[in-house]
Amino acid sequence: MCRFIAYTGEITLMEDLLFNAENSLVRQSKQAKMRVNPLNGDGFGVGWYPTHSDELPGTFVSIEPAWSNRNLSQIATKIPTKHFFAHVRDASVGMPVSQSNCHPFQYGRYLWMHNGRLDQFSCFRRLLLSELSDQAFDFIKGNTDSECAFALFLDEIAFDQQASHSKLVQGMRNTIEKISDYRRQVGASTNAFINFALTNGQESVFTRYSTLADVRPASLFYHQEGENIIVSSEPVTENSDYWTKVERNTLLSVCANKVVAEALF
Amino acid sequence: MCRFIAYTGEITLMEDLLFNAENSLVRQSKQAKMRVNPLNGDGFGVGWYPTHSDELPGTFVSIEPAWSNRNLSQIATKIPTKHFFAHVRDASVGMPVSQSNCHPFQYGRYLWMHNGRLDQFSCFRRLLLSELSDQAFDFIKGNTDSECAFALFLDEIAFDQQASHSKLVQGMRNTIEKISDYRRQVGASTNAFINFALTNGQESVFTRYSTLADVRPASLFYHQEGENIIVSSEPVTENSDYWTKVERNTLLSVCANKVVAEALF
Amino acid sequence: MCRFIAYTGEITLMEDLLFNAENSLVRQSKQAKMRVNPLNGDGFGVGWYPTHSDELPGTFVSIEPAWSNRNLSQIATKIPTKHFFAHVRDASVGMPVSQSNCHPFQYGRYLWMHNGRLDQFSCFRRLLLSELSDQAFDFIKGNTDSECAFALFLDEIAFDQQASHSKLVQGMRNTIEKISDYRRQVGASTNAFINFALTNGQESVFTRYSTLADVRPASLFYHQEGENIIVSSEPVTENSDYWTKVERNTLLSVCANKVVAEALF
Amino acid sequence: MCRFIAYTGEITLMEDLLFNAENSLVRQSKQAKMRVNPLNGDGFGVGWYPTHSDELPGTFVSIEPAWSNRNLSQIATKIPTKHFFAHVRDASVGMPVSQSNCHPFQYGRYLWMHNGRLDQFSCFRRLLLSELSDQAFDFIKGNTDSECAFALFLDEIAFDQQASHSKLVQGMRNTIEKISDYRRQVGASTNAFINFALTNGQESVFTRYSTLADVRPASLFYHQEGENIIVSSEPVTENSDYWTKVERNTLLSVCANKVVAEALF
Repeated sequence: MCRFIAYTGEITLMEDLLFNAENSLVRQSKQAKMRVNPLNGDGFGVGWYPTHSDELPGTFVSIEPAWSNRNLSQIATKIPTKHFFAHVRDASVGMPVSQSNCHPFQYGRYLWMHNGRLDQFSCFRRLLLSELSDQAFDFIKGNTDSECAFALFLDEIAFDQQASHSKLVQGMRNTIEKISDYRRQVGASTNAFINFALTNGQESVFTRYSTLADVRPASLFYHQEGENIIVSSEPVTENSDYWTKVERNTLLSVCANKVVAEALF
Repeated sequence: MCRFIAYTGEITLMEDLLFNAENSLVRQSKQAKMRVNPLNGDGFGVGWYPTHSDELPGTFVSIEPAWSNRNLSQIATKIPTKHFFAHVRDASVGMPVSQSNCHPFQYGRYLWMHNGRLDQFSCFRRLLLSELSDQAFDFIKGNTDSECAFALFLDEIAFDQQASHSKLVQGMRNTIEKISDYRRQVGASTNAFINFALTNGQESVFTRYSTLADVRPASLFYHQEGENIIVSSEPVTENSDYWTKVERNTLLSVCANKVVAEALF
Repeated sequence: MCRFIAYTGEITLMEDLLFNAENSLVRQSKQAKMRVNPLNGDGFGVGWYPTHSDELPGTFVSIEPAWSNRNLSQIATKIPTKHFFAHVRDASVGMPVSQSNCHPFQYGRYLWMHNGRLDQFSCFRRLLLSELSDQAFDFIKGNTDSECAFALFLDEIAFDQQASHSKLVQGMRNTIEKISDYRRQVGASTNAFINFALTNGQESVFTRYSTLADVRPASLFYHQEGENIIVSSEPVTENSDYWTKVERNTLLSVCANKVVAEALF
Repeated sequence: MCRFIAYTGEITLMEDLLFNAENSLVRQSKQAKMRVNPLNGDGFGVGWYPTHSDELPGTFVSIEPAWSNRNLSQIATKIPTKHFFAHVRDASVGMPVSQSNCHPFQYGRYLWMHNGRLDQFSCFRRLLLSELSDQAFDFIKGNTDSECAFALFLDEIAFDQQASHSKLVQGMRNTIEKISDYRRQVGASTNAFINFALTNGQESVFTRYSTLADVRPASLFYHQEGENIIVSSEPVTENSDYWTKVERNTLLSVCANKVVAEALF
């Protein structure tokens, strides 16, 4: 089910959240606290927006566990950034561990992560793919439900690199509705865990959602201190007062130093 | 455009053809003789049929170059086999180097390799995929034209694990015709290099073919000595008298200690 | 502190102990039961003795976690063997995860594994290395205490490929005494966890030992059923009656279908 | 024998020299022009000095070939720097391809690369190691002659992070003299190829040297345009007028926008 972290704020190095914090993402890769299966050792990825005049993020992904990758510790300590996404993966059973399956996925300015599982994906994958535009279809390089969801989203915003905040929010809602619709069409009645994360380097949209009302979605928290905002699968520091739990069925927008929560459906 | 070797015959270790021969496959991975670009350093794979009562081959693939992979040298010297496929890859531009893209591809008893390139693949990939059965569609894990061709073939033989020799040959012919048809439909008029290799562990089928009459297909040779038969992209030993060149537009069957060549079209 | 398994007996495939058993080694790589830190995700290795006339084992090692390595599942299901070692690694802090640091280590007919830690190794490493013969010194390729212990052992048996059982046992004792002596010389007074495993493909020697009397050594168990003998860091099947615990300060010999325990010191 | 590039000058991205130039380092990894064996596919590494207030370089190394590593293309296009080293490796026969053996090697502010081979290294390796300080001995993590030479150098400058230019130059000379001395002691009379590269992020020292007068050392060139200075194993652009060949037996200093060549011995 994975773990992720998103940061926006003052220029920082990624090391604080990835390595130094009490419950840093790399610690979560070995021993996440809010998962039944605490291990997220099936590769990882980071995507950061440069501080110079380049709107496109850089990404670094690996199929190795985050805890033993020497390059990650270098990247985390040497690259200043105001905005980054990071993800440690716990692959669904049978899914290959490959670079193409590592989050965050990138298209132009956008980064996308998923903490969850679109249950019974194999049953509606072909249907989903058949509905994609050629551009979205060709965009997909790996095997994950998460990347297919991103392709759906890109179609929803018509691959617009300059999409407005409201367009991003609407795209996210439409994406989840389409997924729910495809699942209905094939009779997929189990729960889908849908914690998505999207950013364009300026503003971000997150969801905490499960398709069944009686199943608790994967956890999601945020913390704001001035302009610095962290959104993550679980608190990264031990002081839990510090963290606000995102309620279920929520879409969270982080934009212009503000965090706004609204009901998804 | 890759290089491959296929062996059938007495029980042997793979090391002779993979490492020891003057122009062994691992040497070809660094410096193939019959290619303009001599390098095949984008991963490799072997598939061998066990000598005990197990009809399904084992495979070993890696994204590392064959020449520096310490596990390959172990596997090549320790596993007796009467029948194996081996492949070193030169990835087409833009194609990821991943385990899912390494040859040989496997389905049940079958192994499949490709030395060539289905030019303009991106133009007819979606058309090809749309024509596949669900089983063939779901079978595909990677990004290559080669694996898609194998999926086509599996549909042609209806995924039959006990397909007769003539059915395998007909399946191979149909596969190439379908590829040519899909290419025609999208106006792909450049050459496609179609040297396929298929085996079920008992008998094998190879092709040497190019879709344009004035383009020479990738090279293909074989050598027979008693029951031992080697088919490979280029001669593996220096004595070239030893090797028979497969003519263009040929389908080569290796079956019951015999090599039979017939015109493809 | 790692986990390991050793098997000798009837011809088998490695998959039963590596994958299928309730507490298989691959399960232990994610969630070992008898360790405070249950994770052994820093690479793995297997060494098996071929069933044909080849006295030298083959090895397969990887820096990837055992649970997601597709080649391991192939090797485990396709290679018959009467005798094998397998190991999943939890690297000591600061130790690189590299193929050279994966167990089992091999010299000629011998395989060597270690479940434990020679505490304060950095303090006596240079002293230990300075006492090695040139052959033993040059043998070392990686950074681990475990490989240095094996080099010590090889010196103790004078690199003799035909060493008798008593010579192997004496070599093991001498190796541990030397390690203890080097540690004393540099004032290393913390505990060293010394569970070693050695085999020549016919007979094996194991130790369960800690240098401090009040520290419990790492666990070690064995199970015998006819000629089939398994020695492993923890029971591999759920039926614990089935397994005999090896007492601390023990040297265990597995030889000619017999398991013999004797006090180490 | 490897290939390397060093850059100092205005803030740039590494992509120009690593990917875009006619004879970029990544092209050299596949097809170097000034080597008998053109292939440098045994891993690579880059070390860059951040543009913010951090004197210590970041490094990124991999055992994969440079040409197919997707992370390298990201790092090369997203990280601004005024000073970097980059290296593609052709491993000497028998040397493991591992991250610990990738150049550049780092100690604090220093980066070190080697294009060459200390022939008969196995004969004088133990002698060299025995002469090292404990700090230098413990510094070594891999198996290469190149890293041992760096350890020697670090001893020569007493691990001084603030060593003056003249101290760096003297340290380089002493390092080569010691290597030559150790080789003489063991009767190593073949040629050693000694093209070293050292930097502290401000100034750099290079050598082009072979121990035998009748053997041509590995190639070395530089190009200066204003404050931008490139030193590399071979010209990176096609216009060869642009490049100054470094004469054999030369120590080249790059310091304060100047390139100064002096005879080594």
